[in-house]
Amino acid sequence: MADSTKKYTHFNVTFPREYVAHIETNRPEKLNSFYQPMWLELRTILDTLSHSPDVRALILSGAGPRAFTAGLDVKAASTSLFAKDESLDGARVAARLRRDVLEFQDCVTALERCEKPVIVVMHGISFGLGIDLATAADIRICARDVRFSVKEVDIGLAADVGSLSRLPKVVGHFGWVKEVCLSAREFGAEEAARVGFVNSVHESKEAAIQAGLDLAVSIASKSPVAVQGTKELLNWSRDHSVQDGLRYTGVWNSAALQTKDISAALFSGIEKRTPTFEKL
Amino acid sequence: MADSTKKYTHFNVTFPREYVAHIETNRPEKLNSFYQPMWLELRTILDTLSHSPDVRALILSGAGPRAFTAGLDVKAASTSLFAKDESLDGARVAARLRRDVLEFQDCVTALERCEKPVIVVMHGISFGLGIDLATAADIRICARDVRFSVKEVDIGLAADVGSLSRLPKVVGHFGWVKEVCLSAREFGAEEAARVGFVNSVHESKEAAIQAGLDLAVSIASKSPVAVQGTKELLNWSRDHSVQDGLRYTGVWNSAALQTKDISAALFSGIEKRTPTFEKL
Amino acid sequence: MADSTKKYTHFNVTFPREYVAHIETNRPEKLNSFYQPMWLELRTILDTLSHSPDVRALILSGAGPRAFTAGLDVKAASTSLFAKDESLDGARVAARLRRDVLEFQDCVTALERCEKPVIVVMHGISFGLGIDLATAADIRICARDVRFSVKEVDIGLAADVGSLSRLPKVVGHFGWVKEVCLSAREFGAEEAARVGFVNSVHESKEAAIQAGLDLAVSIASKSPVAVQGTKELLNWSRDHSVQDGLRYTGVWNSAALQTKDISAALFSGIEKRTPTFEKL
Amino acid sequence: MADSTKKYTHFNVTFPREYVAHIETNRPEKLNSFYQPMWLELRTILDTLSHSPDVRALILSGAGPRAFTAGLDVKAASTSLFAKDESLDGARVAARLRRDVLEFQDCVTALERCEKPVIVVMHGISFGLGIDLATAADIRICARDVRFSVKEVDIGLAADVGSLSRLPKVVGHFGWVKEVCLSAREFGAEEAARVGFVNSVHESKEAAIQAGLDLAVSIASKSPVAVQGTKELLNWSRDHSVQDGLRYTGVWNSAALQTKDISAALFSGIEKRTPTFEKL
Amino acid sequence: MADSTKKYTHFNVTFPREYVAHIETNRPEKLNSFYQPMWLELRTILDTLSHSPDVRALILSGAGPRAFTAGLDVKAASTSLFAKDESLDGARVAARLRRDVLEFQDCVTALERCEKPVIVVMHGISFGLGIDLATAADIRICARDVRFSVKEVDIGLAADVGSLSRLPKVVGHFGWVKEVCLSAREFGAEEAARVGFVNSVHESKEAAIQAGLDLAVSIASKSPVAVQGTKELLNWSRDHSVQDGLRYTGVWNSAALQTKDISAALFSGIEKRTPTFEKL
Amino acid sequence: MADSTKKYTHFNVTFPREYVAHIETNRPEKLNSFYQPMWLELRTILDTLSHSPDVRALILSGAGPRAFTAGLDVKAASTSLFAKDESLDGARVAARLRRDVLEFQDCVTALERCEKPVIVVMHGISFGLGIDLATAADIRICARDVRFSVKEVDIGLAADVGSLSRLPKVVGHFGWVKEVCLSAREFGAEEAARVGFVNSVHESKEAAIQAGLDLAVSIASKSPVAVQGTKELLNWSRDHSVQDGLRYTGVWNSAALQTKDISAALFSGIEKRTPTFEKL
Repeated sequence: MADSTKKYTHFNVTFPREYVAHIETNRPEKLNSFYQPMWLELRTILDTLSHSPDVRALILSGAGPRAFTAGLDVKAASTSLFAKDESLDGARVAARLRRDVLEFQDCVTALERCEKPVIVVMHGISFGLGIDLATAADIRICARDVRFSVKEVDIGLAADVGSLSRLPKVVGHFGWVKEVCLSAREFGAEEAARVGFVNSVHESKEAAIQAGLDLAVSIASKSPVAVQGTKELLNWSRDHSVQDGLRYTGVWNSAALQTKDISAALFSGIEKRTPTFEKL
Repeated sequence: MADSTKKYTHFNVTFPREYVAHIETNRPEKLNSFYQPMWLELRTILDTLSHSPDVRALILSGAGPRAFTAGLDVKAASTSLFAKDESLDGARVAARLRRDVLEFQDCVTALERCEKPVIVVMHGISFGLGIDLATAADIRICARDVRFSVKEVDIGLAADVGSLSRLPKVVGHFGWVKEVCLSAREFGAEEAARVGFVNSVHESKEAAIQAGLDLAVSIASKSPVAVQGTKELLNWSRDHSVQDGLRYTGVWNSAALQTKDISAALFSGIEKRTPTFEKL
Repeated sequence: MADSTKKYTHFNVTFPREYVAHIETNRPEKLNSFYQPMWLELRTILDTLSHSPDVRALILSGAGPRAFTAGLDVKAASTSLFAKDESLDGARVAARLRRDVLEFQDCVTALERCEKPVIVVMHGISFGLGIDLATAADIRICARDVRFSVKEVDIGLAADVGSLSRLPKVVGHFGWVKEVCLSAREFGAEEAARVGFVNSVHESKEAAIQAGLDLAVSIASKSPVAVQGTKELLNWSRDHSVQDGLRYTGVWNSAALQTKDISAALFSGIEKRTPTFEKL
Repeated sequence: MADSTKKYTHFNVTFPREYVAHIETNRPEKLNSFYQPMWLELRTILDTLSHSPDVRALILSGAGPRAFTAGLDVKAASTSLFAKDESLDGARVAARLRRDVLEFQDCVTALERCEKPVIVVMHGISFGLGIDLATAADIRICARDVRFSVKEVDIGLAADVGSLSRLPKVVGHFGWVKEVCLSAREFGAEEAARVGFVNSVHESKEAAIQAGLDLAVSIASKSPVAVQGTKELLNWSRDHSVQDGLRYTGVWNSAALQTKDISAALFSGIEKRTPTFEKL
Repeated sequence: MADSTKKYTHFNVTFPREYVAHIETNRPEKLNSFYQPMWLELRTILDTLSHSPDVRALILSGAGPRAFTAGLDVKAASTSLFAKDESLDGARVAARLRRDVLEFQDCVTALERCEKPVIVVMHGISFGLGIDLATAADIRICARDVRFSVKEVDIGLAADVGSLSRLPKVVGHFGWVKEVCLSAREFGAEEAARVGFVNSVHESKEAAIQAGLDLAVSIASKSPVAVQGTKELLNWSRDHSVQDGLRYTGVWNSAALQTKDISAALFSGIEKRTPTFEKL
Repeated sequence: MADSTKKYTHFNVTFPREYVAHIETNRPEKLNSFYQPMWLELRTILDTLSHSPDVRALILSGAGPRAFTAGLDVKAASTSLFAKDESLDGARVAARLRRDVLEFQDCVTALERCEKPVIVVMHGISFGLGIDLATAADIRICARDVRFSVKEVDIGLAADVGSLSRLPKVVGHFGWVKEVCLSAREFGAEEAARVGFVNSVHESKEAAIQAGLDLAVSIASKSPVAVQGTKELLNWSRDHSVQDGLRYTGVWNSAALQTKDISAALFSGIEKRTPTFEKL
């Protein structure tokens, strides 16, 4: 299996099923809060698995019983991202901040850019960066004990690594999006399911992980040409007009339809057996 | 009434109420699955009714008790769309596929392009192309027995005639859209209503048709200037910024407000009678 | 408090809490229906409060027990907006209508352009222009007795001051949007909550006002840098691709992160006291 | 050769060289002015040749010594496009005009939509619709005697079938575009070459046709996969951001690079002979 | 004639020909440099003339022999736009600057927003804001003695009221645009004409004014329906895809074609006399 | 100076003047043609210099007397980019090609993404990839002996790493762009200057390098806040509407105007000495 011997510092990466990777944020003693080396490493992991032929679906979750993630490690940020250098004028401070924020955004966007679907499984505290990560993934699942908050306004920030750009495209209830982003109020699993922020709610973290795994296995059993095309075309369509979406789809599929997976799938269907597909 | 004597090969086109057309896919023995001549004919019907002054609202449904449509007739496609010509290189195969897909897309888009609102009424099996057609229509209604599936990944395809471009704009729960498109799992009437894929669920196919008809009659009783403008402006707004939407609306209405329908509607309101409007 | 002595003709503007403004449409004897001087004055009020350092959140509601607003005062419009000048040709009539509509739109857009969040609280009759105003606000709250209708097609119009451009971006159920806009049928509080048109439903107008006030107070207690940035970035993201959203966010925050509000918020958090923020 | 036996009513279609088609507007007695059946037929011709494997480049010119085209046949238009039906209100007149204009635009767009490059060769009077057609083509060539005018304002119109949308994208001197469109003043070959409206100027109509033919032959000698991809990608890029252009190019070429034309071209280059390419 | 008795503080507004307005910046003793009250007044003038039925074309120039404008009055700006308030944090300074810049931009955009074509006539020093104003106008004309410079980088700024947004859309030579914006080097009339920044060069300021006047008179003699539509559609097309341009044009013209100006123009053409058009 | 001790394999990187970097492609024996390790290294160099505080302007040129670059090393590509793996189906080949092309594009885009202006100096053979690189830079300069060609169609390709996306935005003469891309014909320095592809032409390679250096020195002497903002805002504006350009400019400058460079520049101007600016 892919990269199975590779060890990472801040994340456990395992391959619990064929073609399925599981990335687990591993800093439970700090509620899986993130500091810069972590998001850089997460990007490395995702960019690697994105191209690995042994991976067709991914799960992202957090270690320990208490939190998917408490978000940004504010203490660490106060000596880096939020650190002040009084010798610089406002424009120069801005230039540094811009570089830092754009790099940070790019690490989160690695979830979206990953060629294979990513299912995020959330439990416990899932604040701030937790929402940024979740909205960059494809499918969101949670345990009943989850506590969500777009927490940033509570620390004087407009969320800057994706929630404000992606949440309005993930949840169709724009008033609700505004409310939770402007007030930073917590919301739970049931509310998240009702407004469409999560796909399903499960009794425990373990049950949620299992559900994520089952879904990943199901997706990984399909033609990777079809699955990866579907992810790409849905993301493209989100940001373009219907007409541009159709055109791009036509061009994309002019190559994708030249796959043997179609006949493999059709024959398996007729013969009522599970198809196998070449690696991609 | 419009074109009432015109016979089509694959569709029954009737005019059950004044200003209301009903298009019924008529291939029940094959679960109303589609092959190329059918989508070409559907385009012809829609482009004709779009300009007919005798039509103000349309319904689309499928004949027989079992299916709205099983989707693409895969068998037929395997000798046309999916047929291989080994003499051609990959680029030339792609060029042919692109033309075919773009033509196919254009036939489905005829539902969207139609100047009058189209209500699609679904029952039984409604797979693959059934979703493409449904998302290109304006309003979706279903019977309780409906079985939906964005089926394409199961045959090795990313859906290519509209579902991936339109479903994210029809349903605001992007995670759910991703899940059903990536996994091809079936979903039923209740789930479809909950996520906003359909407007209403009815006890039987007959009840759903009746509900669609009632809604069509209601829409057909309004000013056609107002109704057709509303469809156009909503579709434009879906694909443009709010500002471009407002501007286009202002320009559109600078002509539309010059209609006698406004005074007709206002006077009827005062006199508590049903207004009549000139043909359009 | 801001402008507390300023009197307006058609609106009551009060400041019920620190940093919270309440605008009340004050024409209850006409069901708070609007004519041109009213929307011009509303724009003036909003543009003023938008820049007032004493305001951090706003509520908009309607006076009297019967209506948020019955919409456009059709009688007044028939001698202005809809008035006919037979001496002009169709192009010249269009030019006048275009100017009038664009000005009218701009007055409604003042709700969206306002730098601070606007919560609209609706009760009783909330027709036509009421929907236009509501969709231009950030958060929608209603009383249980509310009666909503995108009424315009009933008077021969496609809605022209915002509903058709904004409703599809406020509610993620596009089929429902089409249905209510094409049929002008009424819908109530429960349906509005279910589809995501309103954030919450309250037992009475008074309870709804109180809930709006509570939410406004909560928002007004946060860093105004964070809150105003959040509103701006969410609105920008609605109309742009995710990538453009991220980029704009990075640039915006390169200045916004230079606020003392962050350390104020962080220290208050540690010391478990309420932070205070400089005016903005 | 392609469709060589097909006769058209208003156009001479010939195949003067291998893979090169020549469309000649044939109404010299009326200065090649257009009325509706002509633009409908032109669309048919272009849509046919667009898919013909025997055509790789096209030329469009006008018969007779006096005019490429005098533009719209105003006399004919006054009984069709400009005809008045006093029984209709302004909105209904607008609906008819909109349909007519959109259909007319679509016929002109056939030049742009044609998969193969179109070179337009202009001489003598080239007014109004002549500019619309020219801007929808890929390359513009003219004889020294040419007289250009964006004539529409002189008959009370803003040009409506493409010049105002395409001329700013064809000529980079926006002030000049505004001037000639607002004033309708004539300009000649030299000015057209200077601002970049035409690619080259030739001594006579015959010399211009010959130059167009030479260029068409040169283009037709290249890989049709490469040529048709180049046209498509340039047109796409005109209307999209650089980033969207790059992405679309990457997707397009993922199929196009699977052509045997590349090795054919490379080997021919090494062996210093002319490559031949399969039909497309 | 329009508003002929209205006096402005910083501008001379005259009506030298029927339907032609001339706005002259009148601060020659300061090289027509601008401070805030001036751009606010310029906006007022333009918004007024935009709707005046007595104006069909405008000229903008600068008083005195030495300068069209030296740009921003830096001295005045240093106590307003560039003034520092040390008590504010970087985010709050940014909020003030943003409001000021957006207001300033809106005043310059009044040239573009003006419904009638604006011809700017430049001579002598035309620096900084002079380029911003020029690019927001429709047509640029200059005297031979003109000295242009996108001066902002020389005072530590990226130009912020339009040059960087509009110059790349006015001049098709992007490398040249970059060079003059990045280096702030001066360029003269000949270079400006060569790259397409100006439409024409004249021997003296007086000759340039006369040429601008002649062009304005020519434009003012045309159908105002056609002229104003042409300006609008060209500006719309600059910022949209060709397809969106065509659609908007079709909708716009569905009203505009209902003008009597078309028959007025056609009959005048036949009778070889000058048409007259109703006011707009 | 920046990274002055760093050695690269395929490029000479020197710092001929304060704040000016010179990147020289160093494979003259192969006419500076590129293979994969070269474009990967070029990206590394550019991403590094982009953030180096010691660099404010860059020059890119090619070593040796014969070529800026002959483009892609086709021989090397035939064993990598164009290599065939017969075991893969068309969709899987496409997936690999897509990844390769997107990576290649990203390396070229590093020129555009570089925060500081890049001046490309071209001489001799400048084919294919040479045009891709040139259009991604900010300013293009050439020697009189230069030979340009958008060469790709001659080897069966539509150019895929930027020329087709950027050339139409760099040169305003779209017909010329189409001609040179469709025909692959060579063009020289004079033609390049006339159409606006290059900013200036110089007698020899040495003179061109000197001119590039002088321009780089001039740009490097300005406020880096102003220069880097100008590059960013011009690139943003190229891909967005004027309105989005203005808004982004306002937000960008709300931080950038908080620089001490403005007062430094203003005081130096008054005191007629050269300003110095803090590093950025």
